[in-house]
Amino acid sequence: MSAFRQFYQRASNAYSSNPRLYKLLVITTVSGGGLLAISNSSAFADASQVDVKKKKVVVLGTGWAGTSFLKNLKDPSYEIEVVSPRNYFAFTPLLPSVTNGTVEARSIVEPIRNIVRKKKFDVQFKEAECYKIDTVNKKVHCKSTQDNNLGGTEEFTVDYDYLVIAMGARVNTFNTPGVVEHAHFLKEIEDAQRIRRSVIDCFERASLPNITEEERKRILHFVVVGGGPTGVEFAAELHDYVIEDLAKLYPALEEHVKITLLEAGDHILNMFDKRITVFAEEKFQRDGINLKVGSMVTKVSEKEICTKERATGQTVSIPYGMVVWSTGIGTRPVVMDFMKQIGQTNRRVLATDEWLRVEGCDDIYALGDCATINQRRVMEDISAIFNKADKKNTGRLKVDDFKEVINDICERYPQVAIHLKKKQLKNFNNLLKNSQGDDELDIEKFKLALSEVDSQMKNLPATAQVAAQQGEYLAECFDKMDACEKNPEGPLRFRATGRHRFHPFRYQHFGQFAPLGGEQTAAQLPGDWVSIGHSTQWLWYSVYVSKLVSWRTRMLVISDWGRRFVFGRDSSRI
Amino acid sequence: MSAFRQFYQRASNAYSSNPRLYKLLVITTVSGGGLLAISNSSAFADASQVDVKKKKVVVLGTGWAGTSFLKNLKDPSYEIEVVSPRNYFAFTPLLPSVTNGTVEARSIVEPIRNIVRKKKFDVQFKEAECYKIDTVNKKVHCKSTQDNNLGGTEEFTVDYDYLVIAMGARVNTFNTPGVVEHAHFLKEIEDAQRIRRSVIDCFERASLPNITEEERKRILHFVVVGGGPTGVEFAAELHDYVIEDLAKLYPALEEHVKITLLEAGDHILNMFDKRITVFAEEKFQRDGINLKVGSMVTKVSEKEICTKERATGQTVSIPYGMVVWSTGIGTRPVVMDFMKQIGQTNRRVLATDEWLRVEGCDDIYALGDCATINQRRVMEDISAIFNKADKKNTGRLKVDDFKEVINDICERYPQVAIHLKKKQLKNFNNLLKNSQGDDELDIEKFKLALSEVDSQMKNLPATAQVAAQQGEYLAECFDKMDACEKNPEGPLRFRATGRHRFHPFRYQHFGQFAPLGGEQTAAQLPGDWVSIGHSTQWLWYSVYVSKLVSWRTRMLVISDWGRRFVFGRDSSRI
Repeated sequence: MSAFRQFYQRASNAYSSNPRLYKLLVITTVSGGGLLAISNSSAFADASQVDVKKKKVVVLGTGWAGTSFLKNLKDPSYEIEVVSPRNYFAFTPLLPSVTNGTVEARSIVEPIRNIVRKKKFDVQFKEAECYKIDTVNKKVHCKSTQDNNLGGTEEFTVDYDYLVIAMGARVNTFNTPGVVEHAHFLKEIEDAQRIRRSVIDCFERASLPNITEEERKRILHFVVVGGGPTGVEFAAELHDYVIEDLAKLYPALEEHVKITLLEAGDHILNMFDKRITVFAEEKFQRDGINLKVGSMVTKVSEKEICTKERATGQTVSIPYGMVVWSTGIGTRPVVMDFMKQIGQTNRRVLATDEWLRVEGCDDIYALGDCATINQRRVMEDISAIFNKADKKNTGRLKVDDFKEVINDICERYPQVAIHLKKKQLKNFNNLLKNSQGDDELDIEKFKLALSEVDSQMKNLPATAQVAAQQGEYLAECFDKMDACEKNPEGPLRFRATGRHRFHPFRYQHFGQFAPLGGEQTAAQLPGDWVSIGHSTQWLWYSVYVSKLVSWRTRMLVISDWGRRFVFGRDSSRI
Repeated sequence: MSAFRQFYQRASNAYSSNPRLYKLLVITTVSGGGLLAISNSSAFADASQVDVKKKKVVVLGTGWAGTSFLKNLKDPSYEIEVVSPRNYFAFTPLLPSVTNGTVEARSIVEPIRNIVRKKKFDVQFKEAECYKIDTVNKKVHCKSTQDNNLGGTEEFTVDYDYLVIAMGARVNTFNTPGVVEHAHFLKEIEDAQRIRRSVIDCFERASLPNITEEERKRILHFVVVGGGPTGVEFAAELHDYVIEDLAKLYPALEEHVKITLLEAGDHILNMFDKRITVFAEEKFQRDGINLKVGSMVTKVSEKEICTKERATGQTVSIPYGMVVWSTGIGTRPVVMDFMKQIGQTNRRVLATDEWLRVEGCDDIYALGDCATINQRRVMEDISAIFNKADKKNTGRLKVDDFKEVINDICERYPQVAIHLKKKQLKNFNNLLKNSQGDDELDIEKFKLALSEVDSQMKNLPATAQVAAQQGEYLAECFDKMDACEKNPEGPLRFRATGRHRFHPFRYQHFGQFAPLGGEQTAAQLPGDWVSIGHSTQWLWYSVYVSKLVSWRTRMLVISDWGRRFVFGRDSSRI
């Protein structure tokens, strides 16, 4: 627009200095307008053809799963509407770094409108929260999250043809009293900013006169609940912040600072390899971070946190200045409500099939932290599988007879492949042969051969990596929806005829990092490779930068790191 | 500490591999300790000598005046205590840029502890607000501004020998109803951050369905009250933000956006040269910023702002989405209270003498926006001045007889020098001669000659530049307090004997900028030079960078500007 304005300005200037140019201008404008009209009308014709079958996809959430879906979707034949209380995507793995200013909050966010701006299709965004899903009328009820000045316009509904639920999870307090009131969480950008201010608040408060030594110690006692990667990284980052920056500015307070990490289990980082856990625990001990395992928080009050020690059974009361709660995830109320509605009761998260469709709902997909894939058990389908191979319906089959359906079995039931790998068997035939000794099977022998297979099933972890891969997978499915309707590419349907439309979702684990502070990081890579130390920190830097959502955030995060190395972290209380 | 730890670590490692090194270590440590002990004891002797006469200076405020005082103070013989609700200094001229993310909030702040860290003397900082000044007991009453978890320790007092009041001002609402409740101010970092979020809120709210066209127009109507440099700059920056960045992300909304600037006077930027005002008004008209002069706001309600138009006398009601109030400064309650206490009633700000001492208070200084210099009138002292020149007490004096006291007169009463310059008179003698015709004067003729001089007195503007110069001046005075006690360097005391201790404060105007958006800035430089346009914008960039408080903030602001040029401004709602 401003380019046009400039052009117009220049043109009018030219006209006033030379009236003859005016005619030229008129001709150009008219012919230009004509061209515009032609191109417009052809665009319109295209649009109207498409309009008829344009299906509306509503995406709830702009976290890892939702954003990854939006980024990867290419097919312009959908109409997309996104509803989320956050108008941006946040690169959450760097949240612990935001709590102390190693990275700025704004460096790890990108407006969702910017992410989808260059799409070939129109994406509508509504900054609102979905509070009810109506599967009967195929619409979602939303309300604005802005708190003022709306005048009754805050509620609205959005119709959908396909619904993609990617709302993530909320913090799980395990109903511990006082947590919501007194503890900080570390899930959203605002949480990280609040923690940053709170840390400085504690230091400023401890600097006031009239404060007893005991009170000062209490104020400077930072407690982290939960020994998972987030809690551990936060404790480590806080320790670095105190030692590297705050000690210089508050020299009198350094000796009073204490950081305690409470973990209910026996070890921190228990989803990682033992070597990483041991390294982390030893490093924390060297750093003076107080690690208390087997310590379950029972209550948080204004100035004290109560724990029950598993070893002694005693209840201990710990005075604290700030507590950060980081103990796994819980279900959002709207998801809970939706689960009730569709009969998925007594579950923690939504159950989907291997194609990320919510069980019992056509056209509703769920991905990321709000869902888990309810993997199909081989045992449930064992007769159907047997029958599929037994084309002639003899009730007895040679091992070799399975070769036609082997690939489909392995694709549909990935636990079979995992079992083979674990037992170091070369292929499916070996599995059947091995356990039986002979090479002809009836259904009972077949069942016996596969009986242990289902124990290999594991839920995927609630990580950014899983959510992002699910978003990408679902976008691909949507892109080839029509094509696969005609030519299904998925495995055989064992209980019905034909094939599944798509290959089922398959998670590929690229490894996981656990930053431990002091420029050291532990990484568990695929194939149980473990790497710990300063070089891993550099791997962490480069992987995280490459995964950032835009060049802007990449540049900002790198310059934030650079700034931290040169100038330290800022401690202004803003 | 960590360096020492490293050394210790290495030393212990060396010991475990080679026990002989242990002895060497012990010897080094002991002798080092001895040296330390010696140097410590001599330091202690120094300290105890100084301790006796260490005077305690309490500084209230960490704005331009207070920080400039702290930065420039060199004499280690003071004990300094700073009390301020903000633990950082903010480079306020860039606040309008923070409202839309051209510059990040954190790029323009620097922790006060960091600023004073390399001082040779100890500076104590307390994050608290002074709510009462007790001149009788020479102490200030303070309370913490943190809102939670303090447990009765939030109030304390601080004793002072010298008190430096640099608390700045608050926004002046002129008691207009509804302003505090509904309008945004633009004085603190938090204000700018809130405005930034509010702008995005308005765009997101206007994107919701169920909103009528009329309502959408209201929501996207941004009103700025006050045509001073801050209001004008904010309006211009907001316009750039909308055109350059938001229009791309909210293409459907651009046509509805309206920016209105309300000014009660006849022109915006009325403290600037006429040429700048005209240029700014024309530029705003071209940009489509709606400028309403002669429009006085009488009330702000939740969705409407009421104005009285001077031209027509009518009351107009304007629907708005967001209003920013930027109309000059008011007095803080604690300063108001203090003024009552010392008998300075019916004043807007504290009155000081030319040495920045609060009138009627020994040992209390006031600078920056919370004070004005009550400049001495020549007419008040006219007899004393005459008598000082008339050593022999004859009642009649030759013009030449004044030459001994001319310099002192001009220094003590700077309005004399301004008057000379304005009348294009070469010197004081000419002034006396000129108006009389003869060269002998009695007191009446002397009075007549100087009668117009006092009309040249003007209060200094409430700008960062004045505050910073006052802080620097006061620091210099404190540095040479002892020396000047013995050898006063100031002008003659006309009403008493001897000389004043210090030269009076003299403000040097280096010019003022008015950024107008679209990479154009107006500048009024000393000597009424006026410069407007793109080149002035670059002057603005370089001056502001050079004035920033630290290399960290300089680097950050420059990289913010660079980022804006490359990637635009971020519009995430955080």
